[in-house]
Amino acid sequence: MSSEPPPTAAAADELAADLSAATLSKKQQKKDARKAEKAEKAAQRQQQQQQLPADAEDPFAANYGDVPVEEIQSKAISGRSWTKIGDLDADAAGRSVLIRGATQAIRPVSKKMAFVVLRQSMSTVQCVLVASADAGVSTQMVRFATALSKESIVDVEGVVSLPKEPLKATTQQVEIQVRKIYCINRAIPTLPINLEDAARSEAEFEKAEQAGEKLVRVGQDTRLNYRAIDLRTPTNQAIFRIQCQVENKFREFLLSKDFVGIHTPKLISGSSEGGAAVFKLLYNGQPACLAQSPQLYKQMAICGGYERVFEVCDIIDGLFVSIFKHLTENCKKELETINRQYPFEPLQYLEKTLKLTYEEGIQMLKEAGTEIEPMGDLNTEAEKKLGRLVKEKYGTDFFILYRYPLAVRPFYTMPCYDNPAYTNSFDVFIRGEEIISGAQRIHTPELLSKRATECGIDVSTISAYIESFSYGAPPHGGFGVGLERVVMLFCALNNIRKTSMFPRDPQRLVP
Amino acid sequence: MSSEPPPTAAAADELAADLSAATLSKKQQKKDARKAEKAEKAAQRQQQQQQLPADAEDPFAANYGDVPVEEIQSKAISGRSWTKIGDLDADAAGRSVLIRGATQAIRPVSKKMAFVVLRQSMSTVQCVLVASADAGVSTQMVRFATALSKESIVDVEGVVSLPKEPLKATTQQVEIQVRKIYCINRAIPTLPINLEDAARSEAEFEKAEQAGEKLVRVGQDTRLNYRAIDLRTPTNQAIFRIQCQVENKFREFLLSKDFVGIHTPKLISGSSEGGAAVFKLLYNGQPACLAQSPQLYKQMAICGGYERVFEVCDIIDGLFVSIFKHLTENCKKELETINRQYPFEPLQYLEKTLKLTYEEGIQMLKEAGTEIEPMGDLNTEAEKKLGRLVKEKYGTDFFILYRYPLAVRPFYTMPCYDNPAYTNSFDVFIRGEEIISGAQRIHTPELLSKRATECGIDVSTISAYIESFSYGAPPHGGFGVGLERVVMLFCALNNIRKTSMFPRDPQRLVP
Repeated sequence: MSSEPPPTAAAADELAADLSAATLSKKQQKKDARKAEKAEKAAQRQQQQQQLPADAEDPFAANYGDVPVEEIQSKAISGRSWTKIGDLDADAAGRSVLIRGATQAIRPVSKKMAFVVLRQSMSTVQCVLVASADAGVSTQMVRFATALSKESIVDVEGVVSLPKEPLKATTQQVEIQVRKIYCINRAIPTLPINLEDAARSEAEFEKAEQAGEKLVRVGQDTRLNYRAIDLRTPTNQAIFRIQCQVENKFREFLLSKDFVGIHTPKLISGSSEGGAAVFKLLYNGQPACLAQSPQLYKQMAICGGYERVFEVCDIIDGLFVSIFKHLTENCKKELETINRQYPFEPLQYLEKTLKLTYEEGIQMLKEAGTEIEPMGDLNTEAEKKLGRLVKEKYGTDFFILYRYPLAVRPFYTMPCYDNPAYTNSFDVFIRGEEIISGAQRIHTPELLSKRATECGIDVSTISAYIESFSYGAPPHGGFGVGLERVVMLFCALNNIRKTSMFPRDPQRLVP
Repeated sequence: MSSEPPPTAAAADELAADLSAATLSKKQQKKDARKAEKAEKAAQRQQQQQQLPADAEDPFAANYGDVPVEEIQSKAISGRSWTKIGDLDADAAGRSVLIRGATQAIRPVSKKMAFVVLRQSMSTVQCVLVASADAGVSTQMVRFATALSKESIVDVEGVVSLPKEPLKATTQQVEIQVRKIYCINRAIPTLPINLEDAARSEAEFEKAEQAGEKLVRVGQDTRLNYRAIDLRTPTNQAIFRIQCQVENKFREFLLSKDFVGIHTPKLISGSSEGGAAVFKLLYNGQPACLAQSPQLYKQMAICGGYERVFEVCDIIDGLFVSIFKHLTENCKKELETINRQYPFEPLQYLEKTLKLTYEEGIQMLKEAGTEIEPMGDLNTEAEKKLGRLVKEKYGTDFFILYRYPLAVRPFYTMPCYDNPAYTNSFDVFIRGEEIISGAQRIHTPELLSKRATECGIDVSTISAYIESFSYGAPPHGGFGVGLERVVMLFCALNNIRKTSMFPRDPQRLVP
């Protein structure tokens, strides 16, 4: 088993079970496209008006304006020192700074005064323009700023000051007194998604509704159509930062245990799992398909002397407890951000992960009134119910269910020594949903061929794989993890699309 | 630009230029297959003979034998403590240990004595069997050990002892006095590749030839056909450990600079680069293709507020110098191992990476007698020659060439402000071969559409990409790295297949 990141394809599989939410997609896409086209034309008109030369009468005309793209064709490394919004605090008061950010909000107060809120990733800061000869700020400059479209990229030079009371921006203690403001790249004036709409929590919607106000909801499909905008919400900024942390911690933990990360082929001649949902293509005239899983290659790498895994369950236990702790300790800001838009209960887990046999799980369900075919599989409903029962009884959202029936596991799974109707296999659950499937794998070519044939797989299509075990093959086990599922379930999000940056489903291939 | 690992597809592209070495492949594959079939049949016969019950007359019959697969179907976590061969040193003398490894060599000395060399990854240790009632070792047990096939997986229990003189195994100071030996999984007796043959250096071949001895050479194609065996050579163990380190250091460095790792779709509707060599398939009835590059999605993520890159060249400088230092300091053993089979000069690099303009490079070539079309591209030959000239003049194997002509770069590359016939782009070279291509990317939809059209790309196929830049898009740059190329060139290996675990080329789709 290697420490390579789990394939995103896992998420695509997952989405296939979640069709109804996506069926509106095409209609909505067309509607959105028409809307975007209109907006673009309006933008062009407005831009033409705005790009008139700065007022020749204005002695401070050099302090603001649109920077043409030619100027951004990096003449040379500018050598200028940029300040990060997230680094601004009261200690910076009085200092001159240079910031590049997106104009999240623009609030004209009067002809002589305006506020521009600049954003970088999860951080925002309020910039103040006040017309004054001392500051080099003209009323024309204030007008230029208030006419900027939201989400445009601007450079602001200014002086950090302390406001009288804490601000609404994420940078509450300081604001920027603007001296110069240049627009680097304008956004179209009417964006297909309004960022404020996209960032609202359910509580805010309810509050508005009670006040008789109707707020715009941005559906998941529209979000995905305009993902480059949607990704800017604080919640999305947080989600994908957390995802990166999960992956890093995953790698770090396994590397510390002498695992080696490898890369396996994505184009193969057979199908990895013998399933039907395989993408087929021609590879230089030969029939080929996309690999569904790196597993068979990971096993061949093990046969190649790379890895050895004796006690897989114990690895998972330590691995995930360390990931959970890492997120809780190091992603406080990100978790709070997500919680504001999508409130969730913190994940409960035990220091020593709970392990139940499949039979024990079925028994718990039976006692609670849900009958399961003893040698059949758990459906999603039953898994969720079991998750609730386990939480009630053991106080954990995270547990391992092991010894699954042979009939419901893939051909390469090692049967149990004491009862070949069961296997040395397991699934791992967060909040009643599976995040991992794993098992001891069969390591002898004879048993492997026998089981493949019993499962209806044409052994000739996987002969290179099976032969690998006749050249000296150690006993081993392994597992695969759905990265996007881990993030979704850790934060109790309700849709895998929320944790996939550019998801695919049967209706979606763009963007 | 994200810190995601570069796609393996880059290696596949690379291989397309390296066809002639692969054309023998099919013939050789058939030959190899016949050989393997014969070997397998012989193995079955031999195994049937060997799996006879242990000699009933032997009072020590319990101390050796074949462990049936049912016994390996993990009854429970064994609780036994395993020793790693790499951890064995003189301090362990006198201690009892349990080791699982592959039988790399088996040397009968007499009826009463034999040596078995066990291997784990890059480490080997010599195990000694001496028939003696005190040790519980019978002559039958010695016979069992000497009849084992090479590369079988065995468990050895024994006592660590100090040999009189250093041994040939990687563990030179100690050997194991065997008390028990069990075979866990037999390899077929005649493997399609002999590991000793696969591990030999050119110097050893020459020495043997001078002595009139003819040694077997294992061709690259045969290695790949039986990759699960080939991967066991010390050199291959080292190569893929180094690859993992390069990737880790790459991630670690970029993460420390506030980069975020992301995952981008592998199935897309258009083609990433507008090239011809695109794999096409049907995605639920829609025409789709495999992404050649994550770049367009990385740019959309940047538009989504994720990343910002001002001075890409400086990032590369620091990044690679840190990777080179890390490998030199932390992969000594791996580099020595590779050097034994494939000797190479250590990479020379400067603390501050040399940067030359494309024009300067062309001028150097011209002065050395190679004329290059000034607005054309450098071919591989010219790049290698430039590498040699730079090494002579500046004493470095690692340098950056920047300001490439517009005509030879992709449509999304930003032209130079002072001369639109050139671009803000660069390539990075190790030992005269390209490992990175990078550039400032165009960030306005107008210029991007114009350049795409000029390059003959149907703008409608990449509309979602181009539109992303009308919603507020910061100036940015980025680059892609070929992980396998970095390892190949750092170690001066002569074939990209040596650093790709399961490579693909026009002739190869398996294993």
